Amino acid sequence: MLQRLKFVVAYDGEAFAGWQSQAHRNTVQDILESAFRRITDQRVRVHGAGRTDAGVHALAQCAHVDLAKRSLIPERWTSALNALLPPTIRVLRCAYTSVKFHARFSAKGKVYRYRIWSAPILPPLEFGRAWHISSKLDFEILNAAAEQFIGTHDFAAFAANRGKPEENTVGTIYSACVRRRGPCIAVELDGNRFLYKMVRLMVGCMARCAAGKFAIEEIKTRVATGRATGGRCVAPAEGLYLVRVRY
Amino acid sequence: MLQRLKFVVAYDGEAFAGWQSQAHRNTVQDILESAFRRITDQRVRVHGAGRTDAGVHALAQCAHVDLAKRSLIPERWTSALNALLPPTIRVLRCAYTSVKFHARFSAKGKVYRYRIWSAPILPPLEFGRAWHISSKLDFEILNAAAEQFIGTHDFAAFAANRGKPEENTVGTIYSACVRRRGPCIAVELDGNRFLYKMVRLMVGCMARCAAGKFAIEEIKTRVATGRATGGRCVAPAEGLYLVRVRY
Repeated sequence: MLQRLKFVVAYDGEAFAGWQSQAHRNTVQDILESAFRRITDQRVRVHGAGRTDAGVHALAQCAHVDLAKRSLIPERWTSALNALLPPTIRVLRCAYTSVKFHARFSAKGKVYRYRIWSAPILPPLEFGRAWHISSKLDFEILNAAAEQFIGTHDFAAFAANRGKPEENTVGTIYSACVRRRGPCIAVELDGNRFLYKMVRLMVGCMARCAAGKFAIEEIKTRVATGRATGGRCVAPAEGLYLVRVRY
Repeated sequence: MLQRLKFVVAYDGEAFAGWQSQAHRNTVQDILESAFRRITDQRVRVHGAGRTDAGVHALAQCAHVDLAKRSLIPERWTSALNALLPPTIRVLRCAYTSVKFHARFSAKGKVYRYRIWSAPILPPLEFGRAWHISSKLDFEILNAAAEQFIGTHDFAAFAANRGKPEENTVGTIYSACVRRRGPCIAVELDGNRFLYKMVRLMVGCMARCAAGKFAIEEIKTRVATGRATGGRCVAPAEGLYLVRVRY
């Protein structure tokens, strides 16, 4: 009988070619699968809650695997995996769960954070960890822009593929908040469905508004109609953090 | 007539083989000198306030160079250097100064910070930026240990070479404070003379006390006598930050 193990994992996105398995294998999923294989001597498939792109960080991604038997207690899984993983990937905790649980399909929502460094110079220790914007940003406009996203809307205008016809692009943003601490601005979004590159397209649009290049009405229109008539701006991957997955 | 340019520079220590120039050239000093050479077409020597080891970070190292003429205004120096430097080294500001100013010999003191991550697991984004200690540390003992260093003492017991006979190992620690925020502990030391690996030997000793392996009297004795009879522990380079240089 299969035993489903659920685990929470953090990683530094700069070190990997994203989450999803690829031929060259330097992805978080590939490295996790290889660690499981070394422990179990079996080919194990890792299912993650979200496929983060190259450069995107995770503070608490959630994933599951199916194991042939309960070979180790959860605490031992955590330490055994971390002993084999690079320090840029850490399993934070493991637990056995029901086979009805699926890391991706059982997720009720996700929280993403996007960090912007708004100053003339990006400190070396922030390189790869924030979007550096040296032009002035209006914090009030950032806040007002974030508010436009709250609620249930068709987010097709904020999908990388502008929403395939067959895809459901309607989702709910439960909260969108912007905090500032010195030059560091953090946008935090809690929602139930994030389309491909959605947070980066939302933050790109917010930053354009805050830099005076877009009117805030542009966001209102895009959220109301699901269409983007003007240009779009994708905020770079390195500022994005998957904060947690809600079940 | 020579023009002396003073500048403040930050860097990610993980990316370089330390500050001081070496044959293989992947040092902060070498990379800065090569940037100056590309701008001035002359061989320029960079003098830093402190020679940080490989892995040690700088939030605001101070340095100076002598230039044949006032070729650029200070703001242009900052942007011209940053355009040539890797993003893991940033010049924060430049200013012309008197030839009596010397980055190293004019320094009245320096502030160092040492970061410890006290938790079972080191988050991926803290890798290379803190000393990971998974055993329990007593915060009160850390504080009491730090206090022992305040004042004017012979710090030979906290010098990598235990103080060469010809070297003056007497220095003053003006303040030593320990702060904690969740699992992150920061030790901040302000002093007028830091011997080779002194902060790392001090923090190594503090951590041993806080882990219950050393009595705090051991620090008292070492500070009072300048001698270390028992074992010593050097905290790893990656937790150390040169915060600023005081003139």
